[in-house]
Amino acid sequence: MARRSVGIRRDSAETRDRLLDTAALLLAERGTAFTLPDLARAAGISSATVYRHFADVQEVHREFYYRLIDELVDDLGNVSARARGRRRFEAICDRWAACAALWGRAATHIRSAEGFLARVHHADPPTSTLFGILEPAIEEIIEDGTIPAQETDYAVLIWITIFDERVIVDLSETLRWSTKRIARTLSASVLGALGGDPAA
Amino acid sequence: MARRSVGIRRDSAETRDRLLDTAALLLAERGTAFTLPDLARAAGISSATVYRHFADVQEVHREFYYRLIDELVDDLGNVSARARGRRRFEAICDRWAACAALWGRAATHIRSAEGFLARVHHADPPTSTLFGILEPAIEEIIEDGTIPAQETDYAVLIWITIFDERVIVDLSETLRWSTKRIARTLSASVLGALGGDPAA
Repeated sequence: MARRSVGIRRDSAETRDRLLDTAALLLAERGTAFTLPDLARAAGISSATVYRHFADVQEVHREFYYRLIDELVDDLGNVSARARGRRRFEAICDRWAACAALWGRAATHIRSAEGFLARVHHADPPTSTLFGILEPAIEEIIEDGTIPAQETDYAVLIWITIFDERVIVDLSETLRWSTKRIARTLSASVLGALGGDPAA
Repeated sequence: MARRSVGIRRDSAETRDRLLDTAALLLAERGTAFTLPDLARAAGISSATVYRHFADVQEVHREFYYRLIDELVDDLGNVSARARGRRRFEAICDRWAACAALWGRAATHIRSAEGFLARVHHADPPTSTLFGILEPAIEEIIEDGTIPAQETDYAVLIWITIFDERVIVDLSETLRWSTKRIARTLSASVLGALGGDPAA
């Protein structure tokens, strides 16, 4: 019985993941202009099942966004653990650009209207977790002299602002830059913006 | 008769302006979650009149956004005509921060999901006009040696990205920075991001 219930929970989690994968495709293709029945049709799942997972389409957007930040945080946390100082900063930038090349277009449609620091200040969970990875990386490049001492709030804000998914999609699709060029150029811009010498 | 028709047109333009002013307040207070009847009520104008001006609430958002960019372009064009080189760049940054302090919160709710350069490339009118003010200002600070020679598309993209209205609202409301401090700090970050020495 316990076994069966674990199986049901796993099926349910798989269905939810499949719905969020489909939501990502719909967001990328047509923005937020889809309904729960559209999502059901596109995923090949009954509307009744979709309504068991989500109360409305706003919940789909929110859950997609949370999953995306969770994945980004996992990815950045992994690369972050393997390097220190300036190399940690560059490793985070590389992975970030690679992630945003995958889900950036979907994410542009569900960007929060609230500021990044505002969300950190009232402890929005995914934003705070992301901040918790980026702030120590900034502290390290201050310590090793890559950038001068400064308010880390501002430094993290500028970092996430320059690595905006809309910017990454624009450089990739409009200027046809490679992910590598995007990561390298944006990371140099962040260091320059924070008073460092990117060529150093 | 001609006189009367001019008068009617003027009344109609005033009503439209009043509706867009009210839309700005509603956007700032509750985001995009309002209907045309809500707008009518808040403006003290009949729903029938509102429906004569706008087919749906998306048209209100779009028209508000266009008016806002028109005003920004007028403002930036004026300050831009009075200075050259580095001083022109700083004058534009100052005015931009001042404008965004006024309508920034409303604008965060209706940001385009499409990249800035993508909109410039398919000649979206307000974006192209804004680009037409910013690009020559970038060319001048390349000429006078404030920043090194580079792709102006990228330079303008970084400028508008760092002067994002959500960033300006966040610095103002979360960190309680003055508009002057915001303008000075962001303009130094833009120059640094583009390889210049902000302290020079």
